[in-house]
Amino acid sequence: MQSPQARCYDAGYAPAMTTAATNSSQNARDTRAHGPLDREGFRRAGHALIDWIVEYRETIGDRSVAHLPVPGAIRAMMPDRAPERGEPIAQILGDLDRVLMPGIVHWQHPGWFAYFPANSSYESILGELASAGLGVQGMLWSTSPACTELETHVLDWLVHALALPERFLSTGRGGGVLQDTASSAVLVALVAARERATSFASDARGLATVARNIVVYTSDQAHSSVEKAARIAGIGKEFVRLIPVDAGGAMRVDLLEAEIARDHAQGYIPAFVSTTVGTTGVNAMDPVADIGRICRTHGLWLHVDAAMSGTAAFCEEFRFVNDGAEFADSWCFNPHKWMPVNFDCDVLWIADRAELVRALSVLPEYLRNAATDSGKVIDYRDWQIPLGRRFRALKLWFVLRSFGVGGLRELVRGHVEMAQDLAARVRAHARLELLTDPLLNLVAIAHCDGDAATQRLIDRVNQDGRFLVSHCRFHGRLVLRVSIGAQATQRSHVAALTELLLREADAA
Amino acid sequence: MQSPQARCYDAGYAPAMTTAATNSSQNARDTRAHGPLDREGFRRAGHALIDWIVEYRETIGDRSVAHLPVPGAIRAMMPDRAPERGEPIAQILGDLDRVLMPGIVHWQHPGWFAYFPANSSYESILGELASAGLGVQGMLWSTSPACTELETHVLDWLVHALALPERFLSTGRGGGVLQDTASSAVLVALVAARERATSFASDARGLATVARNIVVYTSDQAHSSVEKAARIAGIGKEFVRLIPVDAGGAMRVDLLEAEIARDHAQGYIPAFVSTTVGTTGVNAMDPVADIGRICRTHGLWLHVDAAMSGTAAFCEEFRFVNDGAEFADSWCFNPHKWMPVNFDCDVLWIADRAELVRALSVLPEYLRNAATDSGKVIDYRDWQIPLGRRFRALKLWFVLRSFGVGGLRELVRGHVEMAQDLAARVRAHARLELLTDPLLNLVAIAHCDGDAATQRLIDRVNQDGRFLVSHCRFHGRLVLRVSIGAQATQRSHVAALTELLLREADAA
Repeated sequence: MQSPQARCYDAGYAPAMTTAATNSSQNARDTRAHGPLDREGFRRAGHALIDWIVEYRETIGDRSVAHLPVPGAIRAMMPDRAPERGEPIAQILGDLDRVLMPGIVHWQHPGWFAYFPANSSYESILGELASAGLGVQGMLWSTSPACTELETHVLDWLVHALALPERFLSTGRGGGVLQDTASSAVLVALVAARERATSFASDARGLATVARNIVVYTSDQAHSSVEKAARIAGIGKEFVRLIPVDAGGAMRVDLLEAEIARDHAQGYIPAFVSTTVGTTGVNAMDPVADIGRICRTHGLWLHVDAAMSGTAAFCEEFRFVNDGAEFADSWCFNPHKWMPVNFDCDVLWIADRAELVRALSVLPEYLRNAATDSGKVIDYRDWQIPLGRRFRALKLWFVLRSFGVGGLRELVRGHVEMAQDLAARVRAHARLELLTDPLLNLVAIAHCDGDAATQRLIDRVNQDGRFLVSHCRFHGRLVLRVSIGAQATQRSHVAALTELLLREADAA
Repeated sequence: MQSPQARCYDAGYAPAMTTAATNSSQNARDTRAHGPLDREGFRRAGHALIDWIVEYRETIGDRSVAHLPVPGAIRAMMPDRAPERGEPIAQILGDLDRVLMPGIVHWQHPGWFAYFPANSSYESILGELASAGLGVQGMLWSTSPACTELETHVLDWLVHALALPERFLSTGRGGGVLQDTASSAVLVALVAARERATSFASDARGLATVARNIVVYTSDQAHSSVEKAARIAGIGKEFVRLIPVDAGGAMRVDLLEAEIARDHAQGYIPAFVSTTVGTTGVNAMDPVADIGRICRTHGLWLHVDAAMSGTAAFCEEFRFVNDGAEFADSWCFNPHKWMPVNFDCDVLWIADRAELVRALSVLPEYLRNAATDSGKVIDYRDWQIPLGRRFRALKLWFVLRSFGVGGLRELVRGHVEMAQDLAARVRAHARLELLTDPLLNLVAIAHCDGDAATQRLIDRVNQDGRFLVSHCRFHGRLVLRVSIGAQATQRSHVAALTELLLREADAA
């Protein structure tokens, strides 16, 4: 820092407040110095905040992507106690710049190549705003039917738009549900699988009574959420088999099959395989179809985590990401990653919704209602951990309609092309190496001189201020990951990163 | 239906679009018929949506609170497939009225007396908007320090403002974290308790290896989320002891103690008591202090769910809701209920954060960073089920500052006074009965002629259109619940409900 401060809010807002204050004859409440906000106060503040967001996003590229303050520095700017009397909204909104901005990492920056894209978009922001403005609860169909029906419908739209199997459609035995994240999705899928494997004895009498250990399989490149889910569900870390991967990072099917056989022989209950379509580290694709056949043979639940890469299926040429989906009992991807939909928004599709609902349903008297009793409606509370739920489908609806499927396809294609261009330049460079052939939008790079040189390269890129990359380890080697997928990223940004990378590679 | 349609959006927006279209010389992108939205398109749509929200909220009292469409009617208004080409934003926003409103139940209505208050507020909507506009990820301190530090700070503010024990402050061994709901809060607390009770053997090797059953205790009036959490965590429904309640609905401490002794004798592991400060049905208060002493004696984890009623502690005279908090290992309440903070927003305080973090932490290479290694920062991903997290603290910050603690106190006092007025009228009525003396804002009513008459009363009230009440069963009797806590509710609304209730009680 300091990154440039967007002062537009203060500038734009103060005059509006003044006007309002001198306009008191129209509405006595207008003259109040502080909240709770009345309609005019909200209207002015809302318009100003919309304008602030525009200014922030349109100038975001001028900021340092990620300059971290000293721990505690943000807190130190705030008073020790909440105020007894309300403060003027202009002062509160002004603190977005004064207090928060010094501690904001700019995930929407065009130079965002770290972790994963966590796209927002103007459409999605409107969706969140509409959801907040309506303030409805979608725990039951009857507590706001539109909340449930829009969600079911839009997730059916996505099955078609991504060319996923029809078994996930709500019109058959399947259906989709929005979760907050892929972590929650794998947890509820695992609970359903655990219950299927124990004929619902665990739900009824607990795993200690079942007495035989349930076993979960995933690759050693899978996301940490699989282990976390297994621990939460009482299965334990020791019963999560981290199957080794091949040279490209994909789960070794032969080793999976051998491990399942070994666990069977031990008297354990192999129950659940979590495959990854696009690993967090290098975006490797597990052979889902081959794994699916093994799951069928041995009666295991097949879960697919396509968190980032699932979005690629908007494009026909990338539909290899759907390979094996026909075997999946559950499939999830995160529109909040590569699709321009605000966090949080994970889609979980289930092939047989009855299994999930049975595993998670509790129906107390105070939630009973005629619609539920009729069996004609979906109550999404039975598809997730929480009881309550926000109207999350609105942002998906807004994005799908405003972009159109064609617009989303273009966005994905653009990112993949940029990644391929970068990969070609790296491949041609004498001192850099690609750790895998990038299939989509993630490029995994190492320096030929080893980890210390790769670390220097990461540091040099991140110190520049225009870009943020992150790291992982792959087959023991340190990796500089370039994940391309922010809505704001243009060819020029990737070109600038490429130049910097190649130049620093020679210097490293 | 049909409830009056808020046409303000169409009316307000169409001229703006026209102006923009004729203004094309200034900016070529302005003329585009459809998305993705550019800055001007977003600015106009955002302002219009703010105005639409004002119109919706200010006229919400003119609508029927809850007119349910036929199942499938909302979906039937939507096309079978997502559009290939983008649609104009005006058309999309117009569909808020056309497609969604017929299926919206109006939770922000002044006649909302059903379930629980799920307040939104203008301040909170601005908080959600700012969060969406920033689009940051708070999974680690380092991925947006302000997201973490604001949350920690505001939850410390709340400890002071609610006069909760200092052990929950982040400056000691405790600390607060935002969860989506009390369901997730009780689940993570239960997982931490399970691990404490098994010396982390369940996390490591699973409950089947531990082999002894973990036991959970709660009252038979507790929320369904306790059973759900126990099932997800592998403990099983059979090992959730639903302790009977006394005449007022509070857990019987003698029966709890006897049950714990019985389970100990059986070789089970009593591990966790979930107490309720304000039951869902009739807002009864468990004797938390007495239960806390038993938990200390026998080494059980004490969790407190004060979902709605925790908010009452803003007022000194209602701080009985905090009784026993000094014994609690975890304590949660939902600002998204009675405080005017948009769903979702549950606060979970932990007395010893190290236990929670140890139970939930997984640290893969790709998340390692210098700040985490330093041990000087909080990484909230280890305090919750998901990895990713939104910037939820913003709305709490906005509400606390704009209302001031004094403003929130007034809001709470107003609702309690209205509930007491209603209760006095019911008490004085010959054919109605109060099932409990209401301590705060929830009035539990039955008709003296029995369940059929109470049901008729519920139906008559809900058919009126101005109000929505819900029901529960208490000691076998059907109850008409009047839960008063919507920000929009004024004395006049409760007076009108009271008149209707008393009149219909005579007719029922």
